[in-house]
Amino acid sequence: MPQQLVECVPNFSEGRRRDVIDAIADEIRRTPGVRLLDVQADESHNRCVITFVGGLAAVKTAALAASRRAVERIDMSVHRGEHPRLGAVDVIPLVPISGVTMDECIAAAMDLGRQIWDTLRIPVYFYAEAASRPERRRLPDIRKGEYEGLAQKMVDPAWAPDVGEPKPHPTAGATVIGARRPLIAYNINLATDDVEVAKKVARAARESSGGLLNVQAMGVVSEDGRAQVSMNLLDYTDTPVYRAFELVRIEAARYGVEIEESEVVGMIPLDAVVDAARFYLRLRDFRREQILEAKLMEE
Amino acid sequence: MPQQLVECVPNFSEGRRRDVIDAIADEIRRTPGVRLLDVQADESHNRCVITFVGGLAAVKTAALAASRRAVERIDMSVHRGEHPRLGAVDVIPLVPISGVTMDECIAAAMDLGRQIWDTLRIPVYFYAEAASRPERRRLPDIRKGEYEGLAQKMVDPAWAPDVGEPKPHPTAGATVIGARRPLIAYNINLATDDVEVAKKVARAARESSGGLLNVQAMGVVSEDGRAQVSMNLLDYTDTPVYRAFELVRIEAARYGVEIEESEVVGMIPLDAVVDAARFYLRLRDFRREQILEAKLMEE
Repeated sequence: MPQQLVECVPNFSEGRRRDVIDAIADEIRRTPGVRLLDVQADESHNRCVITFVGGLAAVKTAALAASRRAVERIDMSVHRGEHPRLGAVDVIPLVPISGVTMDECIAAAMDLGRQIWDTLRIPVYFYAEAASRPERRRLPDIRKGEYEGLAQKMVDPAWAPDVGEPKPHPTAGATVIGARRPLIAYNINLATDDVEVAKKVARAARESSGGLLNVQAMGVVSEDGRAQVSMNLLDYTDTPVYRAFELVRIEAARYGVEIEESEVVGMIPLDAVVDAARFYLRLRDFRREQILEAKLMEE
Repeated sequence: MPQQLVECVPNFSEGRRRDVIDAIADEIRRTPGVRLLDVQADESHNRCVITFVGGLAAVKTAALAASRRAVERIDMSVHRGEHPRLGAVDVIPLVPISGVTMDECIAAAMDLGRQIWDTLRIPVYFYAEAASRPERRRLPDIRKGEYEGLAQKMVDPAWAPDVGEPKPHPTAGATVIGARRPLIAYNINLATDDVEVAKKVARAARESSGGLLNVQAMGVVSEDGRAQVSMNLLDYTDTPVYRAFELVRIEAARYGVEIEESEVVGMIPLDAVVDAARFYLRLRDFRREQILEAKLMEE
């Protein structure tokens, strides 16, 4: 059995008081079976984003402990910040990385939502793959009105929480919990400085204008002055990295432009890298356990 | 710092007595900091191959403990088997996988050789990257004459051991220790059943007849009747998998034949897979630590 690996990226509404951020992160640090990877605090957003990984059970335990600490230390009635937010524990996404299915992450999200209501009395919405209805899939729709408009929003039966009573927690508001695929931030630089080419290629590549499903794309100018197709790949399991690369290659060729290079910004799951090797080397029956390092991660 | 990962694949001259094989493997199993991956025993060879990994220091400790046990239980003066061999602890290769250099593995091989002489009184030859002279790079050259011819061979100053006195251990013979790159067994099936094409392509691809360095290749018929270029890639850091694939693709095209698929037999280091993604996706500045699972292996 491969090791169960889930990424959890909770957002808390505190980006200024270092001691509060540390106290929340410490709850995760001291939970057995999870590994804290990153803590990013943004002062103007007054918000922090914590990244950690582990098995499903340990991730739930850590997320609940961190949420309890956040509720103790954050008072939304005095919170100011530029980023839209609904609560002290604003959003908790669960992301399947390996050895775990999306369905298992959805079930865990629902379970965690129930625990957060039962123990902390914060009403919970489910979003993304865990959404109970289509209008709740997107975070911006759920966050609309923000903490300040929450009491009024919840009165509307269309916006009753998925778990708990339709009344915000007085200091913690509401929490949004869900499951989603890992996002891969992927940029392709074209061998031209004509940003118009990048814009046309981006339009051809993205879902919103007839291109690849699960791909967001825009044409921009890169740091070193190249025309760049800047993409978010929202589900590499259905729409792999190599397919985005090859479609951009073909669409750019129409304008006589080649791909100069591409760039993964931030993290990428191993399976997404293996998929590219499988495709280009036409690998037959290649299992990730054939990778020595991956085999070592098995339990 | 990425975790130090060395693969060690010692061969012991026992492939029949299960209790002896278990006793040797148990020494590795109980050494802290190493992980036993595989034990393969061959009755007709009367030989077992044990694969384990860990940091350099732990790997040396485990190899020494296993060697001590092998010397206790194996008597070469009564050993019979089809595979050439020099001693009870026949050969110990150290293979750098990640977070460790070839030079560090060479130094560790020499250190281990010294310990084996000091504590077990077995004379040691160094081979492959750790060889003290060109004639000792290849295992078959060192093994020539086998255990039975060892006493006589050692008298020749050209075959004096690198460590210890020029006289075989009475029951354990001599041991060969070295450092080498991991070997990748890689087969490419062509879209034809004409094995002659595979033979011509293999000849063009391999080092011995003007092709790629670090590549051994032959043309064979695959299990499902395809013409197959069957290769050993001896150093993927200098001669990566994708280069072998692309050269075979180009040489096969000369005969109007395409590559149907390729196949990795057994294990492959993560870096070799990442190299393929880097090449085909033209990735800029991609670090293996951007792979979530690889980051988790860091210490």
